[in-house]
Amino acid sequence: MRRDDGRTALGVDVGGTKTEILLAGRGGRVLAETRIPTDPEGGAEATLRHAAAAAHEAFGAAMDEAAAVGVSVAGQVGRRGVLLGAPNLGWTGVDVRRLTIAAFDLPTVVVNDVRAATWAEWRLGAGRGVRDLVVLFIGTGVGGGAVIGGRLLEGADGIAGELGHLTVVAGGRRCHCGNLGCLEAYCGGWALEERAGQAALADPAAGAALVRLAGSAEAITGEVVAAARKAGDALATRLVEETGDMLGAAVVGLVNALNSRRVILGGGVMDGFPDLLDRTVAAVQERALPAARKRVEIVRAGLADDAPALGAADFALVRRPRMQR
Amino acid sequence: MRRDDGRTALGVDVGGTKTEILLAGRGGRVLAETRIPTDPEGGAEATLRHAAAAAHEAFGAAMDEAAAVGVSVAGQVGRRGVLLGAPNLGWTGVDVRRLTIAAFDLPTVVVNDVRAATWAEWRLGAGRGVRDLVVLFIGTGVGGGAVIGGRLLEGADGIAGELGHLTVVAGGRRCHCGNLGCLEAYCGGWALEERAGQAALADPAAGAALVRLAGSAEAITGEVVAAARKAGDALATRLVEETGDMLGAAVVGLVNALNSRRVILGGGVMDGFPDLLDRTVAAVQERALPAARKRVEIVRAGLADDAPALGAADFALVRRPRMQR
Repeated sequence: MRRDDGRTALGVDVGGTKTEILLAGRGGRVLAETRIPTDPEGGAEATLRHAAAAAHEAFGAAMDEAAAVGVSVAGQVGRRGVLLGAPNLGWTGVDVRRLTIAAFDLPTVVVNDVRAATWAEWRLGAGRGVRDLVVLFIGTGVGGGAVIGGRLLEGADGIAGELGHLTVVAGGRRCHCGNLGCLEAYCGGWALEERAGQAALADPAAGAALVRLAGSAEAITGEVVAAARKAGDALATRLVEETGDMLGAAVVGLVNALNSRRVILGGGVMDGFPDLLDRTVAAVQERALPAARKRVEIVRAGLADDAPALGAADFALVRRPRMQR
Repeated sequence: MRRDDGRTALGVDVGGTKTEILLAGRGGRVLAETRIPTDPEGGAEATLRHAAAAAHEAFGAAMDEAAAVGVSVAGQVGRRGVLLGAPNLGWTGVDVRRLTIAAFDLPTVVVNDVRAATWAEWRLGAGRGVRDLVVLFIGTGVGGGAVIGGRLLEGADGIAGELGHLTVVAGGRRCHCGNLGCLEAYCGGWALEERAGQAALADPAAGAALVRLAGSAEAITGEVVAAARKAGDALATRLVEETGDMLGAAVVGLVNALNSRRVILGGGVMDGFPDLLDRTVAAVQERALPAARKRVEIVRAGLADDAPALGAADFALVRRPRMQR
């Protein structure tokens, strides 16, 4: 047993439907990877015990070399590894750190999944070599993170980075979070679908192509919008342009406020609508403060779906948690 | 000469119309203070030489004890004390650090005036004891700053903190910076006056009281709006409420994004419309993410107009610049 050599660590990303488990070496080398379904209702303790069993089965003797576990969770993680909020998992108040130590018998750090992915992009992905960066992941929801002066943004309670809940239209669309006019309420996948459905109902002629493709206004998905857009549909084009305008407005503000060197954009909506990147670049070049826009780079995320697990493992390698029960 | 004891430092705040000069001890004790008019067209070199002469005249032998100078400037200050942008002074490209060393014969740090005031609020004002805070100064323009994890937010080029140029209404009012829908384009003093004039012209009946007080729609000032508001005028009340809604929208987003422990609001517009504070507190309590709003405090700025000079002096005491020519 050489647990303290710090050369490999486990990354465990607990999502709402699956838990990704990998073994990573220094520099983000993924040595092995496996996954299990998450059963949120079965509880955190069972999920982490299953994850540990799956890791032992998949990684075998290599488990003996692992120095630590980094756990990435879809929820707000307090400074001691207790979940302050975890709506998708229903695990608010759960001490994930303690449960992981019990399941894996290894020192553990717990980190929010978006923060873990931000860490991964910074250390191993599109953010390498930069000390000031912002990351936005635009999927069903919109999450984010930042590195400020070479340190991961954490916040007073360890829950900073909710960049999807920056207000971009004061008094605007209702967000799932309860605020009005959040970035997510325009650019999140759910919001894009909601906007498409509402637009199709409000103007049936304009929405005809989308409704035909989807079956009904309520059934319009991001994929349907993307397909209609490719076919040159005017409403789909307008929806995507508006999405880009909202994203651009948020990124202009972030560049002005944080003077980041690099802005990294990732997530399913970015993948589905590749020209959102160009619209965002154009917005920043046209409207951000000259001194702030001069050297900023707006780029695509560099890592794949396993970024949270990879980031959590690398975070554990760097932070070198000690065993505390 | 005991220049290296680090116990006192000069603070020089170069504004568009006046230059404030003070001598400060540790803990922000102001030992002496003086001011001269700024003559931007006379150039930075003359201004700083005059400032040094005024300091010698006003502070006498105490000048020999000063260990350093902190210069606060209304402009974007690059990492080496060269102005990257200074629209109010017209000194873009000027090496303020070198000119200050030449004028005062003391080691010098140069810092943006809003950043200096942020530092002052953090170390000596309403932000004491907190490691994560945001400051918004809402005057004619809107500036800001932040402390993140116990460090002043600087940004990749040293120009972070332009919180007045966060977008709060995508595609909204044109800001002086060229962007659309900036916080400043609603809450800055100039914007409040512009909005009031436009509203009075658009609806003369509603604007009658404001126009009567000001003489014309174009002449409506913040003071006029404040007076009409006190008298119960409906348009003035609506204008102030809208200002509060925009400020609230921005602060909700900042609290979500940065998870600050404290938000400090200062500047002439805050002083002129005291209940903007309550509206902002209400917005955060109603609409920020529960975990982020739980422990955040929204408070008034604690220092007076000399905060930039005081902050620059204290910054110099803490940073202990060395003499480099």
